[in-house]
Amino acid sequence: MDNETEKVSITKYEGDTREVIEDVIVREYPVTLILNNEELVTMLCTPEKFDYLAIGFLMSEGLIASKDEIRLVIVDDIRGVVRVEIKQDNPELKDAIFKRLITSGCGRGASFYNAADVRDRVKIETDLRLTPGQVTSIMKEFQHRSELFKRTGGVHSAALTDGNEILIFSEDIGRHNAIDKIFGECTMKEIPLDDKVVVTSGRISSEILLKVARRKIPILISKSAPTNQGVKLAEELGITVAGFVRGSRMSVYANDWRITVHDG
Amino acid sequence: MDNETEKVSITKYEGDTREVIEDVIVREYPVTLILNNEELVTMLCTPEKFDYLAIGFLMSEGLIASKDEIRLVIVDDIRGVVRVEIKQDNPELKDAIFKRLITSGCGRGASFYNAADVRDRVKIETDLRLTPGQVTSIMKEFQHRSELFKRTGGVHSAALTDGNEILIFSEDIGRHNAIDKIFGECTMKEIPLDDKVVVTSGRISSEILLKVARRKIPILISKSAPTNQGVKLAEELGITVAGFVRGSRMSVYANDWRITVHDG
Repeated sequence: MDNETEKVSITKYEGDTREVIEDVIVREYPVTLILNNEELVTMLCTPEKFDYLAIGFLMSEGLIASKDEIRLVIVDDIRGVVRVEIKQDNPELKDAIFKRLITSGCGRGASFYNAADVRDRVKIETDLRLTPGQVTSIMKEFQHRSELFKRTGGVHSAALTDGNEILIFSEDIGRHNAIDKIFGECTMKEIPLDDKVVVTSGRISSEILLKVARRKIPILISKSAPTNQGVKLAEELGITVAGFVRGSRMSVYANDWRITVHDG
Repeated sequence: MDNETEKVSITKYEGDTREVIEDVIVREYPVTLILNNEELVTMLCTPEKFDYLAIGFLMSEGLIASKDEIRLVIVDDIRGVVRVEIKQDNPELKDAIFKRLITSGCGRGASFYNAADVRDRVKIETDLRLTPGQVTSIMKEFQHRSELFKRTGGVHSAALTDGNEILIFSEDIGRHNAIDKIFGECTMKEIPLDDKVVVTSGRISSEILLKVARRKIPILISKSAPTNQGVKLAEELGITVAGFVRGSRMSVYANDWRITVHDG
């Protein structure tokens, strides 16, 4: 039995015909992040890559900007605890953290309505371009890789690609977590992000867009839909957004100039 | 133009063929909940039923238990503000609220790991039963009703049913919000919940399960997958969970005794 799934006995119906079978469901696991000896947050996640999740989360929340600021990461798989020590010269940091956490997360936050947060961002002008064929090929590979989803139907996936191949891939019950794991891994491995493409199985809301913008990602592709605020921010911040990438089709919602059709 | 969607110009690709067309995307709107004159939380949501969302949220967070505790609800659609005044005799309530908010929400929380929270719940023993045909019919009607999803692909739906017809239906960019809107509406209209079925388009995680358990709902059905913690809690709390309800098929993960195949 792997760590990400659990076998359960279920009753399967087709019409009135019932059958008790063994099925596989995705595990949901609480991991507590302790930052500089203070409990910061407990996240429900798919139990793998706890260290990447913790680092990605801290970066997404703006608490660290680079690997240099990390002193120590200790993962206790059994108890579901990640201890992170970061350089912290600002005593007001803790208050800021809590304030931020209250206003963040899955449709229960509004960090971007902090106008400064958007205004201070530099528009991304990276001249990375993809053909429509590259986008649809990446999505095909992405869906092929999504093993856990195929087995359980219960997770989101995220990937980092250079436009040609998938460099990093992760799955998690949370769409934010899946992306944070990618960014955490890139931070730990010092992989530059500003010339890469992020792929997500989930919707592109303002929160996802800002998470990606923070890392200077020029292109974001999804098999799902964007929201109006996701598109608006993508336009303002210079990020190309392709949604509903399915088969040979896709819809480009912002900064279409990065999608170029090569002649024969 | 309705309030829930926005028209945008997009570039649609099929292979290398491109076409600029007008498309409809779902709106994402920040609504700030002010409780007894203090700003409590800003939620990103689909802009409709702000009052139901606010009340449902307060109930899901355990801040109110019934309509009697609500003194006043004022919705300012334009500014995206809902003011709620509740009876509040406990001065420590505010601290509790903030503590709770930090540990709640979309895969970023762990309220249920507060053991007392689960232990104090009474097992639901309501003798409501459905045939497999009723479950699949409800899901068919549910998907038929999901207009916004059909137009935008960007929202979750939730519904309340008595097993025969859909009584209340709501859509929102957040799966928690969609369910909170249902519960808020039931509270305001004083519709009892303990003999009803909740339908959701989203996954059944521990957080969704606990939200439903708090309202004493005996049956939860979803077109998606459950997590292992969702199933575990459903078993413990006496809730019937049917997932992957699609066409004439479904998988029952917990408390199968409420699904009964009637003889001819």
